[in-house]
Order: sequence, then C-alpha cells, then structure tokens
Amino acid sequence: MAASFFGPVRFVGVIGDDCPFDLSKVFAGRDVDLTGLEIRAGSKTFRWAGTYHGRMDDRTTDSVELNVLAEAPPSVPDIYRDSKFVFLANTAPALQIELLGQVDKPEFVAADTMNMWITEHTRDLSELLKRIDCLVLNDEEARLLSGRTNLIEAAGSVLDMGPDVVIVKKGEAGSFMATASGERFILPGYPATEVLDPTGAGDSFAGGFMGYIAKAGKIDKDTLRKAVAYGTVIASFTISTFSLNGLTSISIADIEDKLETLRNSVIF
Amino acid sequence: MAASFFGPVRFVGVIGDDCPFDLSKVFAGRDVDLTGLEIRAGSKTFRWAGTYHGRMDDRTTDSVELNVLAEAPPSVPDIYRDSKFVFLANTAPALQIELLGQVDKPEFVAADTMNMWITEHTRDLSELLKRIDCLVLNDEEARLLSGRTNLIEAAGSVLDMGPDVVIVKKGEAGSFMATASGERFILPGYPATEVLDPTGAGDSFAGGFMGYIAKAGKIDKDTLRKAVAYGTVIASFTISTFSLNGLTSISIADIEDKLETLRNSVIF
Repeated sequence: MAASFFGPVRFVGVIGDDCPFDLSKVFAGRDVDLTGLEIRAGSKTFRWAGTYHGRMDDRTTDSVELNVLAEAPPSVPDIYRDSKFVFLANTAPALQIELLGQVDKPEFVAADTMNMWITEHTRDLSELLKRIDCLVLNDEEARLLSGRTNLIEAAGSVLDMGPDVVIVKKGEAGSFMATASGERFILPGYPATEVLDPTGAGDSFAGGFMGYIAKAGKIDKDTLRKAVAYGTVIASFTISTFSLNGLTSISIADIEDKLETLRNSVIF
Repeated sequence: MAASFFGPVRFVGVIGDDCPFDLSKVFAGRDVDLTGLEIRAGSKTFRWAGTYHGRMDDRTTDSVELNVLAEAPPSVPDIYRDSKFVFLANTAPALQIELLGQVDKPEFVAADTMNMWITEHTRDLSELLKRIDCLVLNDEEARLLSGRTNLIEAAGSVLDMGPDVVIVKKGEAGSFMATASGERFILPGYPATEVLDPTGAGDSFAGGFMGYIAKAGKIDKDTLRKAVAYGTVIASFTISTFSLNGLTSISIADIEDKLETLRNSVIF
C-alpha cells in the first residue's frame, strides 16, 4: 500500500482463507498486482496481538499465531521474475534468500529483519546480507546485530557484513542512513501530533522507501535520501490512525505536502 | 566557554575558595569578563556526582552538595547592566528573576530550568516564563511542565505560558524548536561516535545557542535555527571527552566544519 503511491507494485505473500479482508477490494484502484497473493484453503492467517506502553515507543507481544507462515512458503510468480526493485519483508532469512532466488536480475534489493533472526538464524542472515543491497532495521536490532552500542559504529559494522546501504530506524527519533561510499544521512522523525497505533510503521517506511526508489529508477545519493524522507512521511500517516486507514484516506499530494513540511523543518 | 567562540561573554556566578581551578587561567585568552565571578572566602563550591547508565541517556545523582549555592546569590555587576542577550542558567526561578532584574533592557532572554523547579517552585517559574523570550528544557521537563505526552503539544503548551521560543532537547534524538509565530524546527542530534561524558551537554548547547544569537544581534527565524545547530555541534564536542577539554581544544573553525557536516547530513 505504501509503495503503490509511486507506481506499480507486485505483491508476494500467503494468507489463510479465514482472512476477514478481501485484499482485491482493499487494493482496488491501485496498481498492485496480486498474482503473488496465495489464499491457502484450510489454512489460517498469521495473527499478532500486542500492547503498546508509555509513549508508544515500547511494545510487548501478547500473542503470536504463525499459522500459514509455519507452512510451505509462497512463491514468486514467473511473471514477476524480471522485477528490478525487490523488498524482502521481515521473515526467516533462509526464506528471504529463497524468494530472492526466484527473481532474475534485480537492481536493488532491500530487506528487513528482526531480533529472532539475528540471534537464532545468524548464519542464514549472514548469507542474506551478502546478497542484498540494503538492510532496514531498528536501533535495537542494529545494536544486537553489530554488538556495538553506538549507532554510527553499529551501522558501519553492518555495512562490513555486505549491504551497500544500511538504514537504522529510531522510532520517534527518526532514522540514520549510512552507505559503503561514506554517505551519512540523518533525518528526525516527522513531528507528529497524533500517534494512535504505531503498528506497521516500519513496513510503511520500507514500502515508501522502496516505492520511491523504484519510481526514480536509480540509486544515487539524492534518491536514497529522498526515499528515506518519503518512508518517514508515509509512516507518519500510518501511525496517525488504525489499520491501513492512514494510507487509504490520502493521496500522493498529501504525501508531497508533508514531505515539503519535513524538508522545511530541517533546513538551517 | 561555549558562548565565547562567538564573541564577548559576561559571566555571573559564585564559587567557594576551595575551587581546584583558577577560572581566570581557564578562560585566559578568551573574551570572557569574570567581573561577575565571586570567589567567596570560607565557602565551598557546589558539587555534583552522578552515574551514567546504559547508553549514557540516563543518569542518577550520587551526591549533591549545594554549598555556596545555598548561601546569598551572586549579583550582576553594574557594568553588565546594559547587556542585551541574557542566559539564565539553571537555578531557582526566583533567583533567575532577581538576576534578570539587574539588567536594564535586555533584547533576548533565555532560561534553563529543571524538574525540581517545575514541581516545587511552580509559581515562581510561571512568573519567570512571562518575563523571558526563550525557555530551553529537555523532553522530560517539557512533559512535566506541560502535562502533555506528545512533545509537539508540550512545546505549544509551554509557548502559551509566556516565552516566544521553546527549545526541547531530546539528547541523542536531537532537538525541537517551536515559536509563537508558528515556526517549527527539528534537528537530529549530531551523529557522534565518541560519547565519553554527557555532563554539561545542556549548558554547552545553551551557551552555543546564546553565543551565536548575540553575535548575530537579531532574533529572526534563520538566526534561531542556526543558533540551535551551533548549540548542537558545540554540545557534541563537550560530550566527546571529560570536563571542558572538548571545548578548550577546539577553534571556531572546528565548529564550522562540524556545522557544515551536520547541515549536509540533513538535506534531502
């Protein structure tokens, strides 16, 4: 949804036949190809429930049901093989590698990961990091993966593991991007007054980031910076309300407006 | 020390005759007028000792000896009465008001405060806020003073209490400035790799901020933004090592270099 503001999106994923949403309706009118969406009969959709604490910057998991995610993985449709910009959302790194292997010659591959894969699937993750161009992770994960407390050093250490670009998300405090060529970009969080539900902020950031890069069709310094800014702005819409409502109710013009506000807020 | 990089500084304060430093030597070669420094015979200097935890973003106080600060306050020398730019460092708001009353016609007055004054000297602080142009405080203090969790709302609420400018410092996460005219400026923290001792970061920020404003001699939007950026950069030198060493070992050229790096790090 986040990426679709910028151009066509090809979706890969698997849900059960219990899913309460008709995703073809949810994405109606948007250039989102759902050929890669498998609705598996007799299986149940992944579910997560959690509680946010304090200022919404901390959360605990109340329940997780892997359900269909513990079964056979989805596969990438043949008609997607020529995809040039690939985002591997958070899942087991071995599966991320397998899915990536089903795309012929991607130009730019970004991936998300999480604590569990860093501590328990270390070898797979290490292999993945050699095959991707960009890793998106949060500050805690960056510290865990690198073993370094300082985020600048942590990002440098992750670059040494393979990717050319590392983006460290720091929630309300914004994000930090480091590249192998020495580029350093820091962006504060969007000054949001409404934060109803941070769920999906990270995915929205990644979607906006990748959507903009795919639209730009290149990966230079300016494009990467703008992509981080678009990701930041789109995530701010997501957290302003529940579910996908923050994204389904806006247009690219709203995004451009907020991007301009953010740009004007950081210049000195 | 932080302000002296930009121009002449007039110092007001009181220490005991036990102070292990000769401040006239510490400030030698800098345009710092120490007429307002009282070295009180038979009194002991204020002392604070604390411990920093985790990533240095949290600290506990191990001991405080108010000593000379619990005695009669210092006074502003007559030759300082024409000062145009005044910074009231953190102390009891009643004393800040008293000191401010010893300056004839200041053009821009900024003040710092802390939790203790917010909760226990509420009326004095409220009076102070009506007499100053700018309040500099950290995120926790902004939330405490305003009773609002969201920092944007907290800053707005503090503006309603009197000052035209509010600067909320968020440590590693940078700072946020809001003005009564609707200006909103957000700046990430300087991407520091070395953080040895955060003690004095807030005072260094305020010193750099005020020093730049006094040098500029005006208080427009651009000046305020640049002042926040200079404060941020100077604080990053302070925390890179112990005591004043981070500031005594640098020149204005080092500060300009870092400012340029910070500026280039946030543009998109």
